[in-house]
Amino acid sequence: MSLQEKYEDFIERLRDVNRFRAINSHLSWDQQTMMPVKGREARAGILAWLASQAHQMMTKPEMVAVIEELNNEIGELDEDQACNVREAKREMDKAIRLPPEHVFKAAEMTSTSIPVWGKAREDKNFSHFESTLRELVSVSRERIEYLRQDGQTPYDVLLDDYEHGMTVADYDPLFAGLRERLVPLLAKIMESKQSIPDVEIPDSASFPIAQQEEFCLRVSRSFGFDHDAGRMDTAPHPFCSGLWPGDTRITTRYDVEDPFSCIGAVMHETGHGLYEQGLPVEHCFTPRGRAISLGVHESQSRLWENQVGRSREYWNMAGAWFRESFDECPEYSDDELFRIINRAEPSFIRVEADEVTYNLHVMLRYEVEKAIFNDGMDISEIPKMWNSLFLEWFGLEVPNDTLGCLQDIHWSMMAFGYFPTYTLGNLYAAQLMEKMIDDLGMEMSELLSEQDTSVILNWLKINIHERGMLYGPNKLIEVVTGKLPNSEPFLSYVERKYGKIHGF
Amino acid sequence: MSLQEKYEDFIERLRDVNRFRAINSHLSWDQQTMMPVKGREARAGILAWLASQAHQMMTKPEMVAVIEELNNEIGELDEDQACNVREAKREMDKAIRLPPEHVFKAAEMTSTSIPVWGKAREDKNFSHFESTLRELVSVSRERIEYLRQDGQTPYDVLLDDYEHGMTVADYDPLFAGLRERLVPLLAKIMESKQSIPDVEIPDSASFPIAQQEEFCLRVSRSFGFDHDAGRMDTAPHPFCSGLWPGDTRITTRYDVEDPFSCIGAVMHETGHGLYEQGLPVEHCFTPRGRAISLGVHESQSRLWENQVGRSREYWNMAGAWFRESFDECPEYSDDELFRIINRAEPSFIRVEADEVTYNLHVMLRYEVEKAIFNDGMDISEIPKMWNSLFLEWFGLEVPNDTLGCLQDIHWSMMAFGYFPTYTLGNLYAAQLMEKMIDDLGMEMSELLSEQDTSVILNWLKINIHERGMLYGPNKLIEVVTGKLPNSEPFLSYVERKYGKIHGF
Repeated sequence: MSLQEKYEDFIERLRDVNRFRAINSHLSWDQQTMMPVKGREARAGILAWLASQAHQMMTKPEMVAVIEELNNEIGELDEDQACNVREAKREMDKAIRLPPEHVFKAAEMTSTSIPVWGKAREDKNFSHFESTLRELVSVSRERIEYLRQDGQTPYDVLLDDYEHGMTVADYDPLFAGLRERLVPLLAKIMESKQSIPDVEIPDSASFPIAQQEEFCLRVSRSFGFDHDAGRMDTAPHPFCSGLWPGDTRITTRYDVEDPFSCIGAVMHETGHGLYEQGLPVEHCFTPRGRAISLGVHESQSRLWENQVGRSREYWNMAGAWFRESFDECPEYSDDELFRIINRAEPSFIRVEADEVTYNLHVMLRYEVEKAIFNDGMDISEIPKMWNSLFLEWFGLEVPNDTLGCLQDIHWSMMAFGYFPTYTLGNLYAAQLMEKMIDDLGMEMSELLSEQDTSVILNWLKINIHERGMLYGPNKLIEVVTGKLPNSEPFLSYVERKYGKIHGF
Repeated sequence: MSLQEKYEDFIERLRDVNRFRAINSHLSWDQQTMMPVKGREARAGILAWLASQAHQMMTKPEMVAVIEELNNEIGELDEDQACNVREAKREMDKAIRLPPEHVFKAAEMTSTSIPVWGKAREDKNFSHFESTLRELVSVSRERIEYLRQDGQTPYDVLLDDYEHGMTVADYDPLFAGLRERLVPLLAKIMESKQSIPDVEIPDSASFPIAQQEEFCLRVSRSFGFDHDAGRMDTAPHPFCSGLWPGDTRITTRYDVEDPFSCIGAVMHETGHGLYEQGLPVEHCFTPRGRAISLGVHESQSRLWENQVGRSREYWNMAGAWFRESFDECPEYSDDELFRIINRAEPSFIRVEADEVTYNLHVMLRYEVEKAIFNDGMDISEIPKMWNSLFLEWFGLEVPNDTLGCLQDIHWSMMAFGYFPTYTLGNLYAAQLMEKMIDDLGMEMSELLSEQDTSVILNWLKINIHERGMLYGPNKLIEVVTGKLPNSEPFLSYVERKYGKIHGF
């Protein structure tokens, strides 16, 4: 077989693996949006079966052999092919260290544990989730044993799953540096006398879901999301699924008493969706056509949610839509709406947090996970650690577990080590925005002066989306911005923005 | 390997094949209910890939060998095991005669041809579908070439796909016998002076989908469909998908100007759904846990739709719900509603046809398909043949193709030979109902006197649903009713019912 024939054999096998994964994503989307309650058990079985099929295909002797052979001749391949071989090799190296029984068990467990978490969250009672969480942690510890390499702390293994190459040795100083400037910034904001309008929604008002949906669709379309190549549904925990070309699905949630609650989620998930819609179709079902990392994915959602969606300029467009859709809300001006959605203050829920406090929420989860996996903290200690860190950093007593350690779905999905990528997303987003403004020679005010966001989307498409997995995350940021990932652009952005709002 | 070990190996492989098929069903459901338009092409690829994966697994040398070995020792297996081996053998014998390229081409083609049909139907223009239909017929002819056995006419091969063992030699006399009594019955009904109330809905009235959905859910629940183990959505062509245990999905459609149009569809699809929900869970992903045939499936939908749902007694329950949901409709009494939904008269659309004319619609399609596959009629002749038979049997000029040969989705899905199973369903349903009434010693009036249909559902569960594929369709009807399938119970039921309504 010639090298090209070998590559063709390899890429067909790899596409099959990724078809299993795309189907898995689709069935997970359905599980969270459409599935009837009694479908739970069979669905868990099917998802686990799909995961183990993909795992089996990835670790078949023929697959292992062809990947090793191609990897030895990687210099002979073109850039796209080399990308696919490199990423497949990395994936395979992990896969062959994980026994199929472990993969099956992990996949099956998460399908059944999500509803247990959901119930505990409803009950506002961590103890209803505790034994399930203990099992999830124990299976993750098995994973660590299988995958851990020299020089890695246990938690590093999990961190690497979500952002390749990042370790506690990277996160610890990065997070410390952020905390150093964010805590005083929050204090300054809280002390500042600059008034932010209080939201005063009459008790009698209600905001039907159809109206909220209409508003959210306008926002999502204004960012450039193609709703003929996607859907928007509701889910208790908003997410985005890039299923296959022409089919990207975002979800959001609505609060009929609060027209503001849906805004962040729809902007955020639209940002994720735009990345999925911008990936190169010709490389679908291969790494070259996939998003490079969770951190970079989050940079896209945060850039659209915060840098664009919470900018003063964007509300010159969205203000009118908001007033039109929510006529039972007091008639706030564009500027008041901008100030309302940029209110910064300590609060309990991460997904509703502002740009200043958001990263503190992430760091808290990071500390808790690090304590579990690197320091052997018992699961039963989680609420105590959570609540005491929360009091220390936010100055607030956590009233119940649903406003505390039960708020996020991640642990029920066995996604330990995931949270830090959210903060990476914020940092990358600011770094990208700074470079975009520089490249285009236009400030945000000019970028949005035509009420048209397409120049932003085009820049991201060329610089990020179309590159798929061509470069690792750190490398991609460096290639695009000329600098390695760092927190300076984010900190100066957030200090500048809040200084302006609060007049300091 | 012992026989039992061989069986275990076989059944695990067979479950995997059926998992692929269940996923295929799910993605087809999504395609018709949820998928964004631009997802079409990639979806077609995925569905074709799934079909060819299942085909590959079914024809792998190891699979063929184990099925042959087990089939040689089938007498040593228990009843359930023998059923699985027998059905797998039959399927495999077909599969090994079909080249994988053919399977892939057929699957991919149907995903793209459905929207072409949909567009032609919108355009009311057969010529927009003609070349696609010609390709579909040509691929079906390839299938016939691969599968045809001694003594089969070409069309027999397709008929066998949908109801095993049935041929034109069976259908021709059966259909002739039906026509012989149905045509005079229709004439008598049309001549009869007995008045059926005219439906007089004010032009200004509209019936919001939410109200119709509420009514449909009540009907569906009253039959015993478990909506915690299923969903009800809308689709242009209503259907039912039994995906996996605890997850059966029915679809219906609504006409905001006509509250009557949704009734038949929801009753019909609920009947299908009840069969799926009643299949033995412990045998899921194996033939023993699957529905035996389309004809028997249709007997369940028709029994609930017609024998139960269009009975005078059922409207003692449903009448009040109807009046409650549709307050812009004139207030018809239970008896008037019963008469309205049993109006029999020549009309254009099969799925909206009454019990008397329905089978004539089916026979017309049967004659057209037979002409194409057994007599080599050209595709371009379809509208002419359709319209001329329609005039002959129904006495009506077909005004456009959407009310004629474009009305049904089946041909766009390459489902030639499918329609006759609808009439089998009507015949089986009447035969089952006659036996049920006999077994229970109660007439329909008594069966429904407690406003409770569960005694009907339980009888069907035990006699039909729980038996899965244990017996072939003809055999099943014989085991349950003591007689081979025949048209007498249907004809006497329909003559009795309409004689009563029209007083002859």
